[in-house]
Amino acid sequence: MNRPAEMISPASARIQGGVFGPILEGIRKTMLPYQWKVLNDEIPGIEKSHCIENFRIAAGISQGEFYGYVFQDSDLGKWLEAAAYCLMAHPDPELEAEADAAVELLAAAQQPDGYLNTYFTCTDLTKRFTNLRDCHELYCAGHLLEGAVAYYEATGKSRVLEVLRRYIDYIADFFGPGEGQCHGYPGHPEIELALCRLYDLTREEKYLRLAKYFIDERGKQPSYYEEEQRKLSREFFANGAYGLKYFQSHLPVRRQTKMEGHAVRALYLASGMADVALRTEDEALFRACKTLFDNVTRQRMYLTGGVGSTYIGEAFTFDYDLPGDRAYAETCASVALVFFAARMLQGDLRGKYADAMEAALYNTCLAGMSMDMKRYFYVNPLTVFPEADEKDPGKQHVAPERKPWLACACCPPNLGRLLSSLPRYAVSVSENLAAVHLYVSGTYRIRAGERPVSLRIDTDYPRSGEIAITVSGEADLALHLPEWVHRYTLKKNGKPAEYREKDGYLYLSGPFSEDCLQMELELTPERVYANARVRDCAMQAAVRMGPVVYCAEEADNGDSLHLLRLPEKVPLRVIPEKLNGFSLLEAPGWRLEAADDRLYSTEHSVRRKAAVIRFIPYCLWANRGKGEMRVFLYESGE
Amino acid sequence: MNRPAEMISPASARIQGGVFGPILEGIRKTMLPYQWKVLNDEIPGIEKSHCIENFRIAAGISQGEFYGYVFQDSDLGKWLEAAAYCLMAHPDPELEAEADAAVELLAAAQQPDGYLNTYFTCTDLTKRFTNLRDCHELYCAGHLLEGAVAYYEATGKSRVLEVLRRYIDYIADFFGPGEGQCHGYPGHPEIELALCRLYDLTREEKYLRLAKYFIDERGKQPSYYEEEQRKLSREFFANGAYGLKYFQSHLPVRRQTKMEGHAVRALYLASGMADVALRTEDEALFRACKTLFDNVTRQRMYLTGGVGSTYIGEAFTFDYDLPGDRAYAETCASVALVFFAARMLQGDLRGKYADAMEAALYNTCLAGMSMDMKRYFYVNPLTVFPEADEKDPGKQHVAPERKPWLACACCPPNLGRLLSSLPRYAVSVSENLAAVHLYVSGTYRIRAGERPVSLRIDTDYPRSGEIAITVSGEADLALHLPEWVHRYTLKKNGKPAEYREKDGYLYLSGPFSEDCLQMELELTPERVYANARVRDCAMQAAVRMGPVVYCAEEADNGDSLHLLRLPEKVPLRVIPEKLNGFSLLEAPGWRLEAADDRLYSTEHSVRRKAAVIRFIPYCLWANRGKGEMRVFLYESGE
Repeated sequence: MNRPAEMISPASARIQGGVFGPILEGIRKTMLPYQWKVLNDEIPGIEKSHCIENFRIAAGISQGEFYGYVFQDSDLGKWLEAAAYCLMAHPDPELEAEADAAVELLAAAQQPDGYLNTYFTCTDLTKRFTNLRDCHELYCAGHLLEGAVAYYEATGKSRVLEVLRRYIDYIADFFGPGEGQCHGYPGHPEIELALCRLYDLTREEKYLRLAKYFIDERGKQPSYYEEEQRKLSREFFANGAYGLKYFQSHLPVRRQTKMEGHAVRALYLASGMADVALRTEDEALFRACKTLFDNVTRQRMYLTGGVGSTYIGEAFTFDYDLPGDRAYAETCASVALVFFAARMLQGDLRGKYADAMEAALYNTCLAGMSMDMKRYFYVNPLTVFPEADEKDPGKQHVAPERKPWLACACCPPNLGRLLSSLPRYAVSVSENLAAVHLYVSGTYRIRAGERPVSLRIDTDYPRSGEIAITVSGEADLALHLPEWVHRYTLKKNGKPAEYREKDGYLYLSGPFSEDCLQMELELTPERVYANARVRDCAMQAAVRMGPVVYCAEEADNGDSLHLLRLPEKVPLRVIPEKLNGFSLLEAPGWRLEAADDRLYSTEHSVRRKAAVIRFIPYCLWANRGKGEMRVFLYESGE
Repeated sequence: MNRPAEMISPASARIQGGVFGPILEGIRKTMLPYQWKVLNDEIPGIEKSHCIENFRIAAGISQGEFYGYVFQDSDLGKWLEAAAYCLMAHPDPELEAEADAAVELLAAAQQPDGYLNTYFTCTDLTKRFTNLRDCHELYCAGHLLEGAVAYYEATGKSRVLEVLRRYIDYIADFFGPGEGQCHGYPGHPEIELALCRLYDLTREEKYLRLAKYFIDERGKQPSYYEEEQRKLSREFFANGAYGLKYFQSHLPVRRQTKMEGHAVRALYLASGMADVALRTEDEALFRACKTLFDNVTRQRMYLTGGVGSTYIGEAFTFDYDLPGDRAYAETCASVALVFFAARMLQGDLRGKYADAMEAALYNTCLAGMSMDMKRYFYVNPLTVFPEADEKDPGKQHVAPERKPWLACACCPPNLGRLLSSLPRYAVSVSENLAAVHLYVSGTYRIRAGERPVSLRIDTDYPRSGEIAITVSGEADLALHLPEWVHRYTLKKNGKPAEYREKDGYLYLSGPFSEDCLQMELELTPERVYANARVRDCAMQAAVRMGPVVYCAEEADNGDSLHLLRLPEKVPLRVIPEKLNGFSLLEAPGWRLEAADDRLYSTEHSVRRKAAVIRFIPYCLWANRGKGEMRVFLYESGE
């Protein structure tokens, strides 16, 4: 295994302009202050969070009872992490003061022995770590730790790191292979990633060892979870009939070849596996990650980068099962897919990983929030028919409109931490190479091994295919050539550049000195077809331009979108009108309508009328009122 | 309202030959003895029934605890009813001895005050009638009463009728508008039908009055069920988010315009409404029935006569929501649809009611059992993909193979009682008219008012369109002309018959004297299309010949049936090969296959091969091993 590439710190980048400049500013100025108010229950009329109040009760500052899910603490961890990334990029005394308050609350809620979890502190501390499978303690610890590491890195303030290290040291004593230690592992992976980050920061082997222990212990027989449930005198609860697959613990992880069970768990686990493999040079483990990556992206991923085909257990089902209307495609799962793909790029620089990041980021992740960043989707279907979502209980997980908060509030702060840390996923560095995976406009002052590299990316990508990169430094440069590109040009200082194309990247040799690279990726709207094995897409085509998947909405096209017919050959046109800076598309097509009221008849009883079909980016749907939406439209021959 | 027609008694008919002769013999010789063994827990390795044992425990003959659903008693009621119909048609001392044993057990389990329900007798008699909404007591009473009336009519033995009358008298005292009476009504309708049958037998007004009370009380505000749940200190359980709609008690029944909630309940209720309307000459109530009938058959019925679009609550969802793969389409619901339609024919002689009976009977009802009549479907989808049924928890209600028994065993004995009483639905009589709704081969000695009529129907319908009817008697005759018929001939004694066509019936004037009517309905395989509003059938066609819906099965066509393409115009051919006497069909079409493994691509990446598509009757699917099945196939232009 080659020495893996490293993610860059968000502190080394300034995201400006383009699609993400305003989004990052919005996160700092709007989303995080809003979410802080939500966590403090200061916004009336929305789902109660009680997250901060749980900490206050655990700390003895407030009286009351714990409220919310067992994983309510994680919301604060993610919020703190996102706040840290924002502070890296931009000073913000108000935000920092809120974060400091959160830190003090964490410290106050910590038990004398280091334990830190409000659910068990508020209910029954003797039950701690007795139900690893269901109670999310290690998951919450992971999120708090990621927040702590990021906050320390952002501010240099060690307080929160000390608090979390005490807790993690407690955990590292409690869990492990030793006699008298607990041989369990988290029901919901996440701490594995956090432990690797703590290891990167401290270089203390025990943190990496614990992450590796959690990974390797998982799925051994006899099953820790089965034993645990027996001790709890509980029947083994086979979540949605998945059994141990639901928890990715049906097999040791190295022998798992399919992404199974709860989608977010599966992708956090895979990310943790990759993290450990990269740090321990464990090629076999990294190979297992590759297998899982290929399975999820080649058999189980929606065109929009969404994953998780059923709401029952928020889970994967089986290969090629990708129903658009019943999709779960949780926002968090696409966030997790970005995490996983970015880690794969560290060990295996191939375009397919960056392609998956693009699909997830530009479609499902961005769709997860409203244009004003104050309303959120948890579930991101590809076909929406509000009447069905209301009246078919099998579709009641589908909300046709974003909500200001969610009882299970994992997604909004997860979006916050992903987007505020975008540089981690946009660029990676290794000994002599800086690699650009996502064309995120901004400046990057980074080091490829010992060599400083400065990059300035100016682009409106993916709203435009023009990307200008000004680069200085001795290292080589690799630029992602997305899978969707049919034609492109790459110039250096106005002349055709010299480069080598390999595995979805264009390699340019350094040194560079304020060299200006001009990349033009030809953006053309095109049809996309799912593999014929995908039953739910039969006879249908989707429309994509660049990495941006489009959809037809009721607001433009009327209702009954299943009656639109997109002719196979007609051109898809870019129209002058835009939405949030994104181009809109149109195509001349047809609209069918029922010619009579008979439920069944022996002839096609439809009328066909010419109709111009308008498409908007999927990530912008449901910003103009409630209505139908479809990504895949039926085709007609002419 | 004209004086309603009457159903005929199965005692006045002998079903012989054709499709149903062997089935009725099979019910008497195979199905009922088998089911008796099941009810007695004498068949190892299948779902436990415990039904008889519950009665033995309630009677104090056995020790033990009640086992099964709260409605377990109803299985015996339906079995007894079916046994009675068989005994009407054919003496069978062994079956009669079993039935007599059942009757003694019913008598022994009856409480001194007349109450008769094993669940409450075995658990807590003080709780009787305290949870009408959920506990199915009146439903069980209805089934036992229907069995008792039928058994009395079959054998003249009054024992069981006395037992049940004591119970019903107890119920009639308990429920009603009077002060001190309970103002509730059954959570699961059924007793309404039974009360009307008891009224028909005894002419005692109080039974009809009680049926009418249950019908009219239903859905009044304040809601009896809401009050009841409050008394039970239970949160109002909104089954599958339907609320009171689930129980058809969201509105007074006369104001209900859509079939809502649990499908079997809805259709039993509608049948009970019709029964009461017919006996009380309540035109407004009968109009409500017509509205509900039109809604269910014109907006909510599968092509196969199945109803109930979701497994969540076994319920209706909304108009035109007819997903083939997630269909519930419970066997019992199609049985109930036959009941409802037959009652509508009593008050409104129109072909549409008989058409619905045909759709339900020849497709979903017959599909509900295996060719050997020992295995049963509860759920009858139109699209089956066994991998999905196994791995998508949202489809785990779909069994790709029939089962020898079901934990919730309502369907098998319901099929038994429907099929063994088929004459009730095949022919009705009124003052001067005998009407044939279903062409069921056999002899019928009936009375139209005062006039004796003798009919002999010789036909293999629906396997053939040739129907010979020998008729004697003074009354007129009406023959159902099914909706699917495009061409037909009707001869009388070899010459064109004189008749008048009206509302889906051919009227011939009597008197008849051994006249031979020869009806030929041209059976041609044809495509059927769902209304364009049915989203799940977009771009697809089904195949039907006569009332028999066909399907493509994996056994003939390989897997991935969604990749078959039925060209719009190619002829559908009847082939010489038959299955269970039914013609099979073929059409030259296409099979697509994925040309590569890419999950998404910008061109149609499929290969197309010529393939002969074979169709078998839907009612015979899953008799040749487990595999895929589809009723609706995608069409291709050529």
